[in-house]
Amino acid sequence: MGQTFLRLLAHHPWFQVAAVAASDRSLGRNYGETLSGQGGNQIDSRILDLDLVEPNPKTVGDVDIVFSALPADVAGPIEENFAREGFAVFSNASSHRMDPNVPLMNPEVNAEHTKLIEQQRRVKKWDGCLVANPNCTTAILTLSLKPLQDKFGLERVIVSSMQSVSGAGYPGVSSLDIMQNVIPFIKGEEEKVQRETNKILGTMDQPARIAVSASCHRVPTINGHLEAVFVKSESRMGPDEAIDAMRNFGSAPQELKLPTAPDHPIIVRQEEDRPQTRLDVDQGRGMTVTTGRVRYDDALDGLKYIVLGNNLVRGGAGCSILNAELLLSEKLIR
Amino acid sequence: MGQTFLRLLAHHPWFQVAAVAASDRSLGRNYGETLSGQGGNQIDSRILDLDLVEPNPKTVGDVDIVFSALPADVAGPIEENFAREGFAVFSNASSHRMDPNVPLMNPEVNAEHTKLIEQQRRVKKWDGCLVANPNCTTAILTLSLKPLQDKFGLERVIVSSMQSVSGAGYPGVSSLDIMQNVIPFIKGEEEKVQRETNKILGTMDQPARIAVSASCHRVPTINGHLEAVFVKSESRMGPDEAIDAMRNFGSAPQELKLPTAPDHPIIVRQEEDRPQTRLDVDQGRGMTVTTGRVRYDDALDGLKYIVLGNNLVRGGAGCSILNAELLLSEKLIR
Amino acid sequence: MGQTFLRLLAHHPWFQVAAVAASDRSLGRNYGETLSGQGGNQIDSRILDLDLVEPNPKTVGDVDIVFSALPADVAGPIEENFAREGFAVFSNASSHRMDPNVPLMNPEVNAEHTKLIEQQRRVKKWDGCLVANPNCTTAILTLSLKPLQDKFGLERVIVSSMQSVSGAGYPGVSSLDIMQNVIPFIKGEEEKVQRETNKILGTMDQPARIAVSASCHRVPTINGHLEAVFVKSESRMGPDEAIDAMRNFGSAPQELKLPTAPDHPIIVRQEEDRPQTRLDVDQGRGMTVTTGRVRYDDALDGLKYIVLGNNLVRGGAGCSILNAELLLSEKLIR
Amino acid sequence: MGQTFLRLLAHHPWFQVAAVAASDRSLGRNYGETLSGQGGNQIDSRILDLDLVEPNPKTVGDVDIVFSALPADVAGPIEENFAREGFAVFSNASSHRMDPNVPLMNPEVNAEHTKLIEQQRRVKKWDGCLVANPNCTTAILTLSLKPLQDKFGLERVIVSSMQSVSGAGYPGVSSLDIMQNVIPFIKGEEEKVQRETNKILGTMDQPARIAVSASCHRVPTINGHLEAVFVKSESRMGPDEAIDAMRNFGSAPQELKLPTAPDHPIIVRQEEDRPQTRLDVDQGRGMTVTTGRVRYDDALDGLKYIVLGNNLVRGGAGCSILNAELLLSEKLIR
Repeated sequence: MGQTFLRLLAHHPWFQVAAVAASDRSLGRNYGETLSGQGGNQIDSRILDLDLVEPNPKTVGDVDIVFSALPADVAGPIEENFAREGFAVFSNASSHRMDPNVPLMNPEVNAEHTKLIEQQRRVKKWDGCLVANPNCTTAILTLSLKPLQDKFGLERVIVSSMQSVSGAGYPGVSSLDIMQNVIPFIKGEEEKVQRETNKILGTMDQPARIAVSASCHRVPTINGHLEAVFVKSESRMGPDEAIDAMRNFGSAPQELKLPTAPDHPIIVRQEEDRPQTRLDVDQGRGMTVTTGRVRYDDALDGLKYIVLGNNLVRGGAGCSILNAELLLSEKLIR
Repeated sequence: MGQTFLRLLAHHPWFQVAAVAASDRSLGRNYGETLSGQGGNQIDSRILDLDLVEPNPKTVGDVDIVFSALPADVAGPIEENFAREGFAVFSNASSHRMDPNVPLMNPEVNAEHTKLIEQQRRVKKWDGCLVANPNCTTAILTLSLKPLQDKFGLERVIVSSMQSVSGAGYPGVSSLDIMQNVIPFIKGEEEKVQRETNKILGTMDQPARIAVSASCHRVPTINGHLEAVFVKSESRMGPDEAIDAMRNFGSAPQELKLPTAPDHPIIVRQEEDRPQTRLDVDQGRGMTVTTGRVRYDDALDGLKYIVLGNNLVRGGAGCSILNAELLLSEKLIR
Repeated sequence: MGQTFLRLLAHHPWFQVAAVAASDRSLGRNYGETLSGQGGNQIDSRILDLDLVEPNPKTVGDVDIVFSALPADVAGPIEENFAREGFAVFSNASSHRMDPNVPLMNPEVNAEHTKLIEQQRRVKKWDGCLVANPNCTTAILTLSLKPLQDKFGLERVIVSSMQSVSGAGYPGVSSLDIMQNVIPFIKGEEEKVQRETNKILGTMDQPARIAVSASCHRVPTINGHLEAVFVKSESRMGPDEAIDAMRNFGSAPQELKLPTAPDHPIIVRQEEDRPQTRLDVDQGRGMTVTTGRVRYDDALDGLKYIVLGNNLVRGGAGCSILNAELLLSEKLIR
Repeated sequence: MGQTFLRLLAHHPWFQVAAVAASDRSLGRNYGETLSGQGGNQIDSRILDLDLVEPNPKTVGDVDIVFSALPADVAGPIEENFAREGFAVFSNASSHRMDPNVPLMNPEVNAEHTKLIEQQRRVKKWDGCLVANPNCTTAILTLSLKPLQDKFGLERVIVSSMQSVSGAGYPGVSSLDIMQNVIPFIKGEEEKVQRETNKILGTMDQPARIAVSASCHRVPTINGHLEAVFVKSESRMGPDEAIDAMRNFGSAPQELKLPTAPDHPIIVRQEEDRPQTRLDVDQGRGMTVTTGRVRYDDALDGLKYIVLGNNLVRGGAGCSILNAELLLSEKLIR
């Protein structure tokens, strides 16, 4: 995830990478040296040459914005520390996602949650701020659900995910575990999807009350999470109306023409066998989710459809960066 | 599928392979010569040496039972022809599955449907008979559902499948289509699961009225279909009761100790990350399905669980052979 | 391969796709409709809308250059027909590669073979011309060998290839054949590598006399052929000299700044574990080959190294297009 | 590798697993609890219940034979310690393989090296003994070479390996590193193949003097190492003679009918596309290597062929156990 951040930030029009922080173990080496295996191929050489610094507000240097790809078990206090000391922190970790004073944002879905920042500063007495983005599966799911919620209301959502190995980081999943295999378990993932979906689709003050049930599975693909979604809406919706709602969807990031915002947050494919992980994962440079097979189902009295998204970009670093762009354009940070 | 039949029949205690029939194209060659690629490795050499014959009741020789792995587009009339001429036909094709006079049987689930045979002979005026087995995904699903239906009644079943490439036959799925990919579509599969599940779980005369919704997906595994199942039962069931019901399940094939019947039709794993396709696909020589992650879900007001089965054995040839054993032991055929 | 041609030609600065020809079966439909599975995603929509025409010089319309991705079993007479009728034909098929009057060209390696065109026209009495490009494995191999041949002379080359499934076309290799497998055989491939390498590395009139031995294997990768090469040179070469020769290599296509020519035909990696198929296949938009692990070996009294190339681009369509650019810039065609 | 030992020993007619030793970290837990991921499925439950003990001759209990799957960085002193204290140690580690007083044995290839044991005890003043088995790639290679060496003499051997991920242990290779990829580097492997081949194919006192050159590559397969071999022999050999020599090969383990010895150490396939990793890896319960495509090559003035073996069994635990059986049957240990 750290690598995806640095790839996306390398030529960003508004942001410049000033420092890369890491755990003690890597201090004193430059970033490029610490990359194992896959790393570095797509990262700017200027960034590879940066010396790694401590994740410490005192020593990190002339920095305004902190993007955090820290593991959840250490992210909590470090991120708070930066927020307290005046930095704008955008976090991929799960540590603060359910904190009622931390906006959990998927920018096209709940841009209005930025208003929580003011309350956050007041309650937490922070000079900076902290914004979380959702877990990858949730980011992809909620983007596809938002236009349906707006038009028809949502009563029940059942989702079965087929997630790629890049979602588990590096080295992450052993090849011996996943080749020719499906692992029907990803620790904590189902709970995250169920909780975070309601926070994102709710108001700033109140989570939504959608009955969400998730079953999460790891499949042998490299990048891209595909999800089978079964939806019961409050008012009746047909497939054509749902498709129209998805196709025409766009919100603040598109209106503000933010640099990382895709022109179309949702692409709907009409072929009977799309979206497919390998073919559609990079739509909108990874920021667009692709849906397809939107169909009515008697047994559900609702719709079922497929949604695919890039778990590293829309489901992670890209979402975080778009959040930062949004806050900057709303002058909530500088 | 034909190869799986021949592998399972090679050393069967009751049956002996007397002839292998195939399409015109292959006539006059022996079976082994027609096997491309993968074939033959596990098939008895005596069978490989058999000359291929026409699928014609007149010329097939001294045969009592016909196992059909014909493609659905040609199976219909050929299978009927054999049944009319006095052969006991056990078919994997979808052609006759929904015919109200043809039992659609997953032996542990609806052994009592064998009684349809008498009616079939009367109505169709056949000297022989025709028994169908379900599509692979349905065979695996219904076996796991049966103990729950018996104890708690079933109201709604939602299933999301992750199916291996062997389900599509040979050459079947191109490597370019499935490597690093999920294809969220298998032609006709969802309709089959929805229809066949109710026929199998119904009475001989009347399909069940369970709301079944399926979403079927191809993933890059070789053998084994894994399914995420979400169930709402009629009376309330907890995970422990469901697990007990599955664990203790067995029926006619076990009581009769039929040669192909597994000791335990359902194995329930307690580990948080099982069943897994590669690790569990061959349980009970492919005749056992393995479930796991049986858990209660508020959003469903029901249970969700994972079931895995061998699509070629329980989901195909093994199921067909077990049907033949059942009819033979009930003296419905000889 | 046809798709790779159309992807590369979609925005070519010199060429415009005027017609797409195909076998009878597809006539009357537009190109996009005939693409199965994977196709079309990266191809310009203007091209997808073209009606397919017959591969016939009379009816193909206002066309100067013909790129042929026909299968070898039909390519021969069709390509000759076009060449006779005045078209410049650039062929990927193996049909004419060993014809002494047809240049077999890997542009950076043997640009001077273009002089054969004059002789070809005289002998064959063709108004047009025909240029072949080598088989994919050979194209990648010979590009890496050329700087060594120039500096040190080549006595013996042993090559063991690990080839991806895209080299076999679509649908090509069945997933059941290649998942979790290595297939140590690709029909005709070893003979092609052995023959074509000497033709390309020879003079216009005379093949080289290098002892070439190939063993070709299919591995489960999507795109990119990786080759282990063992070389005995005529004069002694050390790894550093070999690396220098590769690094500094460039020839006519680079000097002429042809649109498809990569800045660096050969990139040499210094890491101990590179090149790797997935990481390096798209270097130079697929036109650059990447070498690595150049090391001396006592047992060979020579060097061994790894070379990786994009089998669809350098090993096929890109090579063909670069040949056309070369002939055009030399005014051998117009 | 430890797991493969325990799977093979679970029902061994001569040996019984009395203790499982492991690093400090796991002490006090039973073996089954320490198995991550894949483990345990095929291991006897009695063994899974054993408490892990220290790898210490004093505390290991009533044990005669020690099979060591320790990592090379710790194996050295621990194994020596056991040998000194009177245990018969059979080691998979590379630590002592090149020690001139330690037999490096692939039982069918150099059974006569057991005579080194006497010298070992004298020189090292050990009450027990230590026998090493070769690295996996070498075990497979040397078994296929031995009949050729016996009949024709060997001058030069070039080998290019395509090795599966199980060779790297667990968790071993990250899925992100190997999916859709070939990694042309395995640390230390080429040197091991080159050295160990000559020790095994030499006499007890003197390594052979074959020029061996290896290039080793990791491909995305689970189990089975496939090797392309190019051989120049001392006296001329044709493919048919080589095939005959391989087919008829057998030695002490077969004559003594040792329990782990396969009936046929080498199977030669005649199909043009065999052996294949997935199809042939379990021949002879993993103890047989399969060769194919034995063909003459002008450029080599020799033969090339393919050999495939099970890297965990023939290339590891099975080889070690067969060594123990051999020493026991020769009464060198008890």
